[in-house]
Amino acid sequence: MNKKHIVILGAGYGGMMTAAKLQKTLHTNEAVITLINKNDYHYQTTWLHENAAGTLHHDRTKIKIKDVIDSNKVNIVLDEVICIKPEEKKVKLANGVMNYDFLVIGLGFEPATFGIPGLSEHAFTIGNINNARLIREQLDFNFASYHNELEKNDARLNIVVGGGGFTGIEFAGELANRIPHLCEEYDIEKTQVRIIIIEGAPTVLPGFDERLVSYAINSLESRGVEFINGALLKECNQDYIVYEKDGKRTELPTMTTIWAAGVRANSVVERSGFETNRGKVEVRNDLRTPDFEDVFVIGDCALIKNEATGKAFPPTAQIAIQQAETVAHNVRAKVRRNELKSFCPNLQGTIASLGNDDAIAEVFGRNLFGWKAAFMKKMSDNRYLLKLGGIGLLMKKGKFNFFY
Amino acid sequence: MNKKHIVILGAGYGGMMTAAKLQKTLHTNEAVITLINKNDYHYQTTWLHENAAGTLHHDRTKIKIKDVIDSNKVNIVLDEVICIKPEEKKVKLANGVMNYDFLVIGLGFEPATFGIPGLSEHAFTIGNINNARLIREQLDFNFASYHNELEKNDARLNIVVGGGGFTGIEFAGELANRIPHLCEEYDIEKTQVRIIIIEGAPTVLPGFDERLVSYAINSLESRGVEFINGALLKECNQDYIVYEKDGKRTELPTMTTIWAAGVRANSVVERSGFETNRGKVEVRNDLRTPDFEDVFVIGDCALIKNEATGKAFPPTAQIAIQQAETVAHNVRAKVRRNELKSFCPNLQGTIASLGNDDAIAEVFGRNLFGWKAAFMKKMSDNRYLLKLGGIGLLMKKGKFNFFY
Repeated sequence: MNKKHIVILGAGYGGMMTAAKLQKTLHTNEAVITLINKNDYHYQTTWLHENAAGTLHHDRTKIKIKDVIDSNKVNIVLDEVICIKPEEKKVKLANGVMNYDFLVIGLGFEPATFGIPGLSEHAFTIGNINNARLIREQLDFNFASYHNELEKNDARLNIVVGGGGFTGIEFAGELANRIPHLCEEYDIEKTQVRIIIIEGAPTVLPGFDERLVSYAINSLESRGVEFINGALLKECNQDYIVYEKDGKRTELPTMTTIWAAGVRANSVVERSGFETNRGKVEVRNDLRTPDFEDVFVIGDCALIKNEATGKAFPPTAQIAIQQAETVAHNVRAKVRRNELKSFCPNLQGTIASLGNDDAIAEVFGRNLFGWKAAFMKKMSDNRYLLKLGGIGLLMKKGKFNFFY
Repeated sequence: MNKKHIVILGAGYGGMMTAAKLQKTLHTNEAVITLINKNDYHYQTTWLHENAAGTLHHDRTKIKIKDVIDSNKVNIVLDEVICIKPEEKKVKLANGVMNYDFLVIGLGFEPATFGIPGLSEHAFTIGNINNARLIREQLDFNFASYHNELEKNDARLNIVVGGGGFTGIEFAGELANRIPHLCEEYDIEKTQVRIIIIEGAPTVLPGFDERLVSYAINSLESRGVEFINGALLKECNQDYIVYEKDGKRTELPTMTTIWAAGVRANSVVERSGFETNRGKVEVRNDLRTPDFEDVFVIGDCALIKNEATGKAFPPTAQIAIQQAETVAHNVRAKVRRNELKSFCPNLQGTIASLGNDDAIAEVFGRNLFGWKAAFMKKMSDNRYLLKLGGIGLLMKKGKFNFFY
């Protein structure tokens, strides 16, 4: 029997969960499985804003691949994907080439800066562990520098968050909790520090219930966060940004701009010649690309339309994890020549964290806020860990600080 | 009775100890005592290299003035000294003017960069708490940045220490212990990091016994520190330095140059018109300036020649603390119209730390090295705390980690 080679690109929510499912349900006699990732760790993208703000150490967010994946059952290759050649059933890596029979593309997202001048050079993004710990250090470094300069530079203490969506709000919430500690560490008055969210839409957190949005705004404002809505970031420089509101341009001194207003699918997908819709592959119901029988796409690189609304499902961890179960099933079906099944998303709700003990949530059709929502968020994070790596991983990386 | 006003400038080793002594031995009926300092804390200058390397938090090094000085007995003014007008018996402050009957100048040191191009702009110095925590952050920031750049920049991982004297060696020793932790934190290989000491003389640690110098060099080299002796720093830029050795100029990429090869007395002294010898006041035996009957100078601003050798005593904490006892005695004598006494230094030895558990020492005429010398160093640090603030301060800030 000729064993099939299953190659999974990326150890994000989708790829990691696919590999974890396949190692349990496919026998090593049936297929060879290879997981390719840049780092030797998986990380919880939805926790990165905490690492960036400095309220949670990144070691908590990182999960060693070998803590979840059994290297007796799955090959682990640490390398970077340069491009995919689906006609040749090959993946070009920085240090090699990999042939596959079945491919799962779970390469995640990268920041989209929409050509705003200076943004890619001077703004920070919250996309991976490296980014997140750099933001943490940028904050510390500017606070540390403040008293070393004869002429005090407000740009060191103004922090601009570009975008009041999910990531921007969650980051601002953590940051507001971190500032008092930074101020104490570097002998700075709290009132000197500004956190400013610049949002293009008339209000932040689009898609959330209006009452929850009000709650979130109040929670953040009470901790010193400022909102500039209906404003567009026009320019980003090393020590100031320019935004436009009501046709008027304003300069704002800052050395720390966090760009949280745009991501796109990993550009490897487009570069590899797949047919894309705004960078993503509009997949079939069984999560395969329209053009290739043996290529699955998962997570942020995949576009699935909600048939009820006609809109695309948002690129969330929740969806990626659910897709992984379908992909794992369908890859197994391909190996065993069984029938493929369709992906059927089960939207359980949305929770936006506003800090360790505060959040807003729409779950089971109900609105929650405050510590109850924060509790739900931690429960949902813990549930993922349990699903991915069992009780051992949950105990190691779970969030149990429910009541402090 | 017309009470006299004693003004002490600076809460360093000399000024702080003078204030501590005076509050115990002068009655508030006899004199008004005012201590003027920029910050609300005293700090242990000899511990700053640990804060800078990140091996000890600066809160351990800071001592709140009010933890030692009784504000019922001593006025505490937080302000910056602009200049002294000894003819008018006035001190000009950033936010005021202070008249005195007796003045104690203990304004410490500032870095001397000898006109080396770029040094004052781009190099870091280990002079105060603000400097030290900035160096710590500079290290963290560069390590954090390393993996965020497509083109890897060695300048982020090369650390240059200008000067292999006391401070340079002590800092390098701490840094060598910190690097493994930084590497782990930011996923960097230890072999990629370089610590390079550039020393003008043919060897480091001038004045120490040759065997102890060899021990120190071996200890540092075994932890990856490189020595470039007989070399002069010629130029310092944001991402490289230039040094000259044997007539040849070499560029070395680095974003972190710590200048530990020169300090001078606080320039306020020279600016105020005192007669100085390389920035310091060559004081009388009773530690007064030659020209003014009521002005004492202490610590790094004072120059005292060792009559045995004809050389100046080094500007150490040990000497400053001993001077404080003489100055406190003499100020009290002036208030009470008693006789002044001469300063008589009692050199007990020199200890250079090489990290938490390693050091070299010449004490009681003996050479010590390794953990014994490190133990002596901690004992000597603890003795100072006991002297300054009693058992309470010792318990709060002492070093008791003798054996880890």
